[in-house]
Amino acid sequence: MIVSTLLVGGLFFGLAGDVLASGAEEASHGSAAVTFLWIAILLLVAKAASLVEKFGQPSVLGELVAGVILGNLAILGINFFEQVKTDSIILFLAELGVVILLFQIGLESNIKDMRRVGIPALLVACIGVVVPFVLGTYIVGPLLLPNLDPNAYLFLGAALTATSVGITARVFKDLGKLRSPEAQIVLGAAVIDDVFGLIILAVVSAIATSGSVSPATIGLITAKSFLFLAGSIILGQIFAPRLGKLFSKINTGVGMKFSLAISIGLFAAFAAQMIGLAPIVGAFAAGLVLDPVHFRFFRDPQIVRDIRSAVKGVNSKTREKIFQAVERYSYRHIEDLIEPVAFLLVPIFFVMTGMSVRLDTMFNPSILLTALGITVVAFLGKLVAGLAAGSANKLIVGFGMIPRGEVGLIFATIGRGLGVVSDEVFSVIVVMVIFSTLLTPPILTFLLKRQKEADSQESSHLGLPRLHLSPYLLIRISRRSLHWLERRRRKS
Amino acid sequence: MIVSTLLVGGLFFGLAGDVLASGAEEASHGSAAVTFLWIAILLLVAKAASLVEKFGQPSVLGELVAGVILGNLAILGINFFEQVKTDSIILFLAELGVVILLFQIGLESNIKDMRRVGIPALLVACIGVVVPFVLGTYIVGPLLLPNLDPNAYLFLGAALTATSVGITARVFKDLGKLRSPEAQIVLGAAVIDDVFGLIILAVVSAIATSGSVSPATIGLITAKSFLFLAGSIILGQIFAPRLGKLFSKINTGVGMKFSLAISIGLFAAFAAQMIGLAPIVGAFAAGLVLDPVHFRFFRDPQIVRDIRSAVKGVNSKTREKIFQAVERYSYRHIEDLIEPVAFLLVPIFFVMTGMSVRLDTMFNPSILLTALGITVVAFLGKLVAGLAAGSANKLIVGFGMIPRGEVGLIFATIGRGLGVVSDEVFSVIVVMVIFSTLLTPPILTFLLKRQKEADSQESSHLGLPRLHLSPYLLIRISRRSLHWLERRRRKS
Repeated sequence: MIVSTLLVGGLFFGLAGDVLASGAEEASHGSAAVTFLWIAILLLVAKAASLVEKFGQPSVLGELVAGVILGNLAILGINFFEQVKTDSIILFLAELGVVILLFQIGLESNIKDMRRVGIPALLVACIGVVVPFVLGTYIVGPLLLPNLDPNAYLFLGAALTATSVGITARVFKDLGKLRSPEAQIVLGAAVIDDVFGLIILAVVSAIATSGSVSPATIGLITAKSFLFLAGSIILGQIFAPRLGKLFSKINTGVGMKFSLAISIGLFAAFAAQMIGLAPIVGAFAAGLVLDPVHFRFFRDPQIVRDIRSAVKGVNSKTREKIFQAVERYSYRHIEDLIEPVAFLLVPIFFVMTGMSVRLDTMFNPSILLTALGITVVAFLGKLVAGLAAGSANKLIVGFGMIPRGEVGLIFATIGRGLGVVSDEVFSVIVVMVIFSTLLTPPILTFLLKRQKEADSQESSHLGLPRLHLSPYLLIRISRRSLHWLERRRRKS
Repeated sequence: MIVSTLLVGGLFFGLAGDVLASGAEEASHGSAAVTFLWIAILLLVAKAASLVEKFGQPSVLGELVAGVILGNLAILGINFFEQVKTDSIILFLAELGVVILLFQIGLESNIKDMRRVGIPALLVACIGVVVPFVLGTYIVGPLLLPNLDPNAYLFLGAALTATSVGITARVFKDLGKLRSPEAQIVLGAAVIDDVFGLIILAVVSAIATSGSVSPATIGLITAKSFLFLAGSIILGQIFAPRLGKLFSKINTGVGMKFSLAISIGLFAAFAAQMIGLAPIVGAFAAGLVLDPVHFRFFRDPQIVRDIRSAVKGVNSKTREKIFQAVERYSYRHIEDLIEPVAFLLVPIFFVMTGMSVRLDTMFNPSILLTALGITVVAFLGKLVAGLAAGSANKLIVGFGMIPRGEVGLIFATIGRGLGVVSDEVFSVIVVMVIFSTLLTPPILTFLLKRQKEADSQESSHLGLPRLHLSPYLLIRISRRSLHWLERRRRKS
């Protein structure tokens, strides 16, 4: 299977290379067709790579690694994918993909579960922002990269703050752990995190441009961000039930509800961006606020008729039980409809994330070593934050917060634009993002599996003790039986 | 509902206008977010417009008209949507949408049904290409637009040949008629049509550039096109069952099969484009060749367990019946998975098609009148072709072939690029495309509904005569009963 997929892939590339070279002018009005080819290739590569699932790894890891390979084929002289990296349409589809992913995760998350973990999530977010920022800006930054503009350290520290929750969420999702308290804490903390990141970015930019920043400005930025977050939660609480009622009245079919739901998600992503937050935060919030209960679709009236006629002659109690068992499945939930869209777009995001990794930056030993040091800070800061996770597994929460992504890169890019961040610091931040992204999935998978094993052992202790057919047990049983038989014999 | 959707829409536009104006530089790194907003708006508008379904019209008509309105708001001074019209990402999503639509329609179509209508489809395609071409180039063109370069008439005639099957297919789909012989003939003829269109474009371009074309060149182009078509059908016949077998062995979940299927569709779209055919032709062919039987997914093993426990104690025959009724929908078909992707992308295509209509070209009376004449030719040519539809409804096939779209516009664009097609002729072609696009859905809906009524009347004639409780019948029955009673009395 892997071989055949790779073969097909190889044929694709061979064909595509030739055709692209010869057919470029022919296809002048049809550049869309080339993008179709790229999407097909990215999807096939992602799916071939997701076979790492067979080895117990989450498929997101496979997609990331496949992306790293594709993105660095240029080292071997294969330049086909260089165009893909900068193609605006593919980049857009990737961004739409991660928005859809977070919307989907928001829908699957429960606002009540989130509220229950509110306090630990807030603590995890606060510590996870303060510790890496202080370490990066004031201690490890000046230590590893001496003699820089102090503002460069500020940007380095800031780039270490915000968790990019997409990767962690995918790992939790791949392993069926999205509803666990750990996942809920990480998701909640990542949203709060992003708001802190926004404030820090505004403050740091102000310092870098004007040399200083007034407490009033900091206050204003902070107030604006929290107002938005609080506002969207309150508005969501007010409007979501009404929208839900409206949706439950819509009978014009599955398409209408799907379009409304996805439009709300996209609008929230846009609104978040406009206020300066990451679009994924808006999409996640929208998913969280929308109540999936109102997005059940009665799938096919035919099935009801079929089953009604099948159960004729069965007694009413059994019939009721059959109806109950079937009814649940005669609905399609909004998640079922978002899923195929996610199948199409989400792998593009992760493969493209992998492709943006430039292995050649790692070939510079001094950058690599410095980046390793900064990565240790990135890990430590969030692992310390994990200690605030209350009764949840602290290690899982800590590692779940580690991935840095687009927010860190945005900080680096803005800093470079302001002339504060040098190419060297920029590369260090990029390598830190790469390490934090690539190392998290396998570590998290390991921890989640270990937790599962521990759980199942614990439950076997709490429930009925399992019957181990050890030789010792057999001896005990036979001895007891002998005793019992002897007693009976004596009685008789 | 309509009002509230429009209200939400209005709020969107108001908000968006302000935010876009003020937040443009803020959102410099996040232009994707603005595209999210546009997608949300297009989807909401499309869905609000699809409420024309309540009045018995196909939703595609609503989407087209909504698009025409949005696209011409500039006349009223609202320029918000002008950006959307030329946004490369939205245009790409629209093109991806129509590719997905034709792939979906290919999957739903049956290759055996298509082969059964092979001869009528070929005839319909031939006549539908020859008649409008001859009429446009040699008769009506020179009559309505005198004193032009003869090559201009060639391009005008060529632009009248190829049917754009997307709209017709949507109407058939909206009304649940995709499996009818009429739909199959139109789909088949449109594919062949496109191949003829390709040949004509090559020939006409050669004539326009070099003044003449050798029969050898025409032969070569023709051979190449038919070879591609025949090749893909033969390859499909050979590989589709093998692929099917491979797919049926894949157990790594729904995502894998979905990705493989959609990748094949996209690759076929790319290949068609490379050979010079429209991408939608490739996508349709891929859908046709893939056997949906191999794309059944066992949905959830839980359902089987639940139902097994519910039917305990029921006798085995009834149990079997219940299992049969349930089994059918415990599977999800590939169509179910493509559908949500289509929900997201297809409305974008139709709204954008509507938006590309420029109402102001219609304000020029001389262009409008000429265009009306050419539109009559466009209609007549395909209605004559419909006469070859054999035993199928000739009017439905004829009107189904009428929509002209991207292929006609490509001809016009290439002709204009060669300096052969004047702005006047270009506008005439554009208006003809508009009329053929906008008039087809209501006419086709009317014809399909009339056919349905006729069918239901006919079946009541063929089957058992219905019992009309007319007074006359009552009198007859009572008379006969009286006779019968009297006879019995006499016998006794």
